[in-house]
Amino acid sequence: MTLQRTSLGPAEIRKLCRTGALRGPTAGLADGYVQTNLMIVPQSFAFDFLLFCQRNPRPCPLLEVLEAGNFTPRCAPGADLRTDLPGYCIYEHGVRTQELGDISSFWQDNLVSFLLGCSFSFESALVLGGIPLRHIDQKLNVAMYKTNLACYPAGRMRGNMVVSMRPIKAGDVARAVEITARFPQVHGAPLHIGYPAGLGIEDLAKPDFGDPVRVLEDELPLFWACGVTPQYVAEISRLPFCITQSAGKMLVTDLKNESTLPA
Amino acid sequence: MTLQRTSLGPAEIRKLCRTGALRGPTAGLADGYVQTNLMIVPQSFAFDFLLFCQRNPRPCPLLEVLEAGNFTPRCAPGADLRTDLPGYCIYEHGVRTQELGDISSFWQDNLVSFLLGCSFSFESALVLGGIPLRHIDQKLNVAMYKTNLACYPAGRMRGNMVVSMRPIKAGDVARAVEITARFPQVHGAPLHIGYPAGLGIEDLAKPDFGDPVRVLEDELPLFWACGVTPQYVAEISRLPFCITQSAGKMLVTDLKNESTLPA
Repeated sequence: MTLQRTSLGPAEIRKLCRTGALRGPTAGLADGYVQTNLMIVPQSFAFDFLLFCQRNPRPCPLLEVLEAGNFTPRCAPGADLRTDLPGYCIYEHGVRTQELGDISSFWQDNLVSFLLGCSFSFESALVLGGIPLRHIDQKLNVAMYKTNLACYPAGRMRGNMVVSMRPIKAGDVARAVEITARFPQVHGAPLHIGYPAGLGIEDLAKPDFGDPVRVLEDELPLFWACGVTPQYVAEISRLPFCITQSAGKMLVTDLKNESTLPA
Repeated sequence: MTLQRTSLGPAEIRKLCRTGALRGPTAGLADGYVQTNLMIVPQSFAFDFLLFCQRNPRPCPLLEVLEAGNFTPRCAPGADLRTDLPGYCIYEHGVRTQELGDISSFWQDNLVSFLLGCSFSFESALVLGGIPLRHIDQKLNVAMYKTNLACYPAGRMRGNMVVSMRPIKAGDVARAVEITARFPQVHGAPLHIGYPAGLGIEDLAKPDFGDPVRVLEDELPLFWACGVTPQYVAEISRLPFCITQSAGKMLVTDLKNESTLPA
């Protein structure tokens, strides 16, 4: 099924997920609306994960946390987090054991859901600002890398940061910083610019997640903290159980991108 | 004992508290360094309070959360939160039962400490920006009011927001907004400007906390979210037990005010 950009609103897209009609990535859908990463953990790990996010706001910008057992977020009225994303991953003891389109059968009243900002919001602002993004033009996933940057640990949660990389023309780098710095709720300004080795990245052509994207001679690689970090941390920390969205298959909320500007 | 502005560093001030030599307010001490509100709750309430702060970042801007039992924050190396503030309040079931200078005898391994931003940081920026603050010039406490603005509840925590009020000349209002908006970690921009009735405040001359401060004809009252909110919420929510700083007796940290600019 092919969906046209901006043709469907957030509630319609969530309904397509719920009925199983949409199982693909959500990039480019409901343009202008905030999409979020999802992390669901048992109540016994909720304080640790909330603390981890508080200590690591760049990779884990919290947009909303639901009370245990609640699956209808404020940012998406009428939604059901168990069915309204195109795809989910189940992790057990740090290992991804299943990928599926509906997690109703896994739901328990002790599960706590976290919604985290995602780079789709600031990518939209960059493109609107006249800064092209190659992975979007080439319809690829953004390139993501594990780094040598340790997150601040919290309780039983620990691990290194994952970053996403976008090549930006040298003359656009400062403006790309300015534009994305306006959106701290969706990862904010780049963490690092122009020196992959400083993050422990040996070969840009071999990302750990997503697709490789070429960096041209007049471009620098810009690295942003990435929302895949919590999944990597769940793996490293061997979290007994958690559920996340599948790669690129986000929750589409009713929030406008502008609403993530600083309060 | 009279202390000169800027004459002592943060570690020296904390040491004076620890020995009992300093029992007064910390306003004006260690100029340029971040001071914080303190809230200590039992582990069984830590998730609720952390969630309350995540949902209400304007009154409850979290600077640091310590693991259960830990009393040495990262932002004040070598400090002991049990002794290094000039004064503390003990609340039991929402009632303030004691005010004292050392909480070592109350300490337990299940207590979780939260450090929250305080307006001293942005007041310093306003004064540096050439905007005078009457309560400072008159050596009064800032005027604070309970409002009709409900905070987002979280678990067992609920209550209305407390705001602080500063009179600002009409021609300085926009700049006061710009300056304080730069500091979201210490309450950020005003919540409300110029219309006390809109917050349910009937008489500016009768603050609920602090001292009354006159508003002149060419001035508007500017209202900022206030760090007293968590204490008021603890009262309203009848929290079984918590410890806070005494009014105006903050933790002086090693962080510079500039470090609270957006990451």
